[in-house]
Amino acid sequence: MESGITFDFENIRTDAVGPEHGVSEKELARLSEPLAHGHERLAQLRESGEVAFFDLPYDKENVAQVKQVANEAAGQFGAVLVLGIGGSALGSIALRSALCHPLYNELPPARRNGPRLYIEDNVDPVRLKAVFDLIEPAKTLFVVISKSGTTVETLAQFLFIRSLLDGDLRNNVIVVTDAGPSTLRGIGESECRATLEVPAGVGGRFSVLSPVGLLPAALAGIDIDALLAGAAQADRIRCSSPSAEDNDAYMAAAVEYILYQKAKRISVMMPYATGLVEITDWYRQIWAESLGKTSDVGPTPVRATGVTDQHSQVQLYREGPNDKVICFLGVQHFQEEVPIPPAWESSEAIGYIGGHSFNQLIEYERIATTLALTDAQRPNYTITLPELNAYSVGQLLYMLEIKAAISGELYGVNAFDQPGVEAGKALSYGLMGRKHYERAKQWVMNKQAGRDETSVDEMVDEMK
Amino acid sequence: MESGITFDFENIRTDAVGPEHGVSEKELARLSEPLAHGHERLAQLRESGEVAFFDLPYDKENVAQVKQVANEAAGQFGAVLVLGIGGSALGSIALRSALCHPLYNELPPARRNGPRLYIEDNVDPVRLKAVFDLIEPAKTLFVVISKSGTTVETLAQFLFIRSLLDGDLRNNVIVVTDAGPSTLRGIGESECRATLEVPAGVGGRFSVLSPVGLLPAALAGIDIDALLAGAAQADRIRCSSPSAEDNDAYMAAAVEYILYQKAKRISVMMPYATGLVEITDWYRQIWAESLGKTSDVGPTPVRATGVTDQHSQVQLYREGPNDKVICFLGVQHFQEEVPIPPAWESSEAIGYIGGHSFNQLIEYERIATTLALTDAQRPNYTITLPELNAYSVGQLLYMLEIKAAISGELYGVNAFDQPGVEAGKALSYGLMGRKHYERAKQWVMNKQAGRDETSVDEMVDEMK
Repeated sequence: MESGITFDFENIRTDAVGPEHGVSEKELARLSEPLAHGHERLAQLRESGEVAFFDLPYDKENVAQVKQVANEAAGQFGAVLVLGIGGSALGSIALRSALCHPLYNELPPARRNGPRLYIEDNVDPVRLKAVFDLIEPAKTLFVVISKSGTTVETLAQFLFIRSLLDGDLRNNVIVVTDAGPSTLRGIGESECRATLEVPAGVGGRFSVLSPVGLLPAALAGIDIDALLAGAAQADRIRCSSPSAEDNDAYMAAAVEYILYQKAKRISVMMPYATGLVEITDWYRQIWAESLGKTSDVGPTPVRATGVTDQHSQVQLYREGPNDKVICFLGVQHFQEEVPIPPAWESSEAIGYIGGHSFNQLIEYERIATTLALTDAQRPNYTITLPELNAYSVGQLLYMLEIKAAISGELYGVNAFDQPGVEAGKALSYGLMGRKHYERAKQWVMNKQAGRDETSVDEMVDEMK
Repeated sequence: MESGITFDFENIRTDAVGPEHGVSEKELARLSEPLAHGHERLAQLRESGEVAFFDLPYDKENVAQVKQVANEAAGQFGAVLVLGIGGSALGSIALRSALCHPLYNELPPARRNGPRLYIEDNVDPVRLKAVFDLIEPAKTLFVVISKSGTTVETLAQFLFIRSLLDGDLRNNVIVVTDAGPSTLRGIGESECRATLEVPAGVGGRFSVLSPVGLLPAALAGIDIDALLAGAAQADRIRCSSPSAEDNDAYMAAAVEYILYQKAKRISVMMPYATGLVEITDWYRQIWAESLGKTSDVGPTPVRATGVTDQHSQVQLYREGPNDKVICFLGVQHFQEEVPIPPAWESSEAIGYIGGHSFNQLIEYERIATTLALTDAQRPNYTITLPELNAYSVGQLLYMLEIKAAISGELYGVNAFDQPGVEAGKALSYGLMGRKHYERAKQWVMNKQAGRDETSVDEMVDEMK
């Protein structure tokens, strides 16, 4: 048994939930060839550099640069504000939530390992204004992250903070973008404090272990070496085999693929640890964008929270349509042991609770929910982290990335593109008046006036 | 046109998304009788007092008590800590998020309308400990909310804070529970500062406008009169008709019901306003617990965030399986107007952005996403709040409650019970050693040892 996170697939087997809703040995055996084939294809994509997230755990150069930039900033700023959206924000939100104090930004400075860390991944004007009730621009380090250099939300935020800084970006702004020439890269290099790179071949949703996720993490005092060491262990040992029996990431992909054919079109991730809740949103992106590609292919990822959602979603999960596969996340040893002190011991409704601990309670509830769902033939599996630390989170993120990549192979879709978002982007550009998108604006105007129009895809093709 | 929130169903019609994925006039007409019948049955349940949430906007007595308790507490506490889970927490989380400053707890006291407000709806030991890094028990008002008086998570938290208060609850603890005799009610009345009531016939997930939601809101300075006035307007005017044409809540229920039969089994709520994001979790409960009742009935509610999830979920929503209905939430006038200052104007990638405002950007992106999805025949509708204020939020919450209630009638399920959560509760009680649940513990032990056992439902029946 390798050290690190463990996967328990028992409750997904036909033995546990029956043939209609479970996975049999035979069904798994049938996937061994597609898995081996996918394994090989991914190895080729890795080898050629076309898909480069695989090697991020070993990217010494970028890590060194992240550390240098973080070290140079140490002690100089009261807050870090990350401007990014989608893959440029979800990774650092997940890392902050898992590896910083649960109320990190509210702690007094002496109790934090770094400056406060805000990650602003939206363009709501009220929220944006609100952040500046709490930070002083001159004492804030802004990290502007856009892989393409063209993300309208992030660039709009950048214009806003540029104005707050009176146009002087030299001390307060770091840019993270890809290597190709772009206006953003040019601004980063000529006007800003530093410019870090999103390595070629690393897609936004696979970029958490690049400077995109590492720089905010390092600034907040997270041990990025341990994070990468966990990911490297996942790569070298946990995910090296083409066989699901020896590769939990492949097994997770395989069982979810089999169950998708059995009408389990919804993929729930339900952590029993508050620190892991934001990882579900990171997972939602990697799962939806990588696999949501055709009218037949695209499991819908759902964010749930244990134990909270026992009082919200479990009614549906247990008695509603059997259309889900549920992945529970658990933590074996929490960093705190918190006893429940006894009182009112003669009360039948309360007396029995004291003397236990919250650690026991959350574990018992996870076990109870798992059993209650299995008993109702609802397929589920559990990933357990020995502790919530940088090493195990690195393992988890990397294995979930591998799971998404190999799932693309099983479903026969390209896990590394996202053509379906282009239409909406083109329409936004049109409405904002971007050059060359005049036709998109006209399209919107015509649609709103009820006039006949082509499909948006045809219109986008026209513009090319 | 009544003042207040508006519903736009245009993109859900067959005209917009075609007959396979849209709703026709004929299909709607077929529901007019079931709606009228359901309307009548709900009126009877209301009349008889069996379902009492309908009348919460007019519950003067409880409102007066909430205000009195809140007034008496004013200025005495640095923080309010709500202990509750599910329906005892989701309402106040939604209200805090919608109607307080987006970073309310981080503001200096002079900028807040009340003490900091923490709502702890989970039993993670690390999180629980973390909260007490930030609050001083003696200077904190604890609001312990459990309708039944038996909620293990909340009672465990209560034991924890009782110990921090050295057993003296007189100044710092308020209990909110139902009127029936219970240990918790007894403790509230004999040992605590005050005891408020969850009115009879008000289910947990329909309790946001009872003291359960109103007390935390009032303590944080939210205008609960306006909230209730909005709900009352929704009741008296917006939801008074049995006809979907004149009742947007019924129309929303009807279109989602029709689309559920057309294999749209997933109900996405996607707000384009950060303040409304937490309402999606409140909605998830009311939708899943009210309707998730049989192997055929139970749309799965999904939380999404505009614009953020354009970079995460929209690929799937647009190109993946057409199995969703999407409800967008929008805000017409944000409380802040935030311009995007121009710079780098000669750059094609950036220059076009300056000169607009974030208000325009978020609206354009909502329009673009709506059109891109409609163009791909993905049914969607939009609810627009004129402003994000207590009155419009009161309207919205009440209309979503009515939508859930009438949906129960359309689907032919009881929207007001949740039998599917009993199994998991019984198993947790067993593991925690609660009296009379010995059999449940034995059941878990047998299951874990791989021994034959009855179904959990049979076991629960045995115990009765």
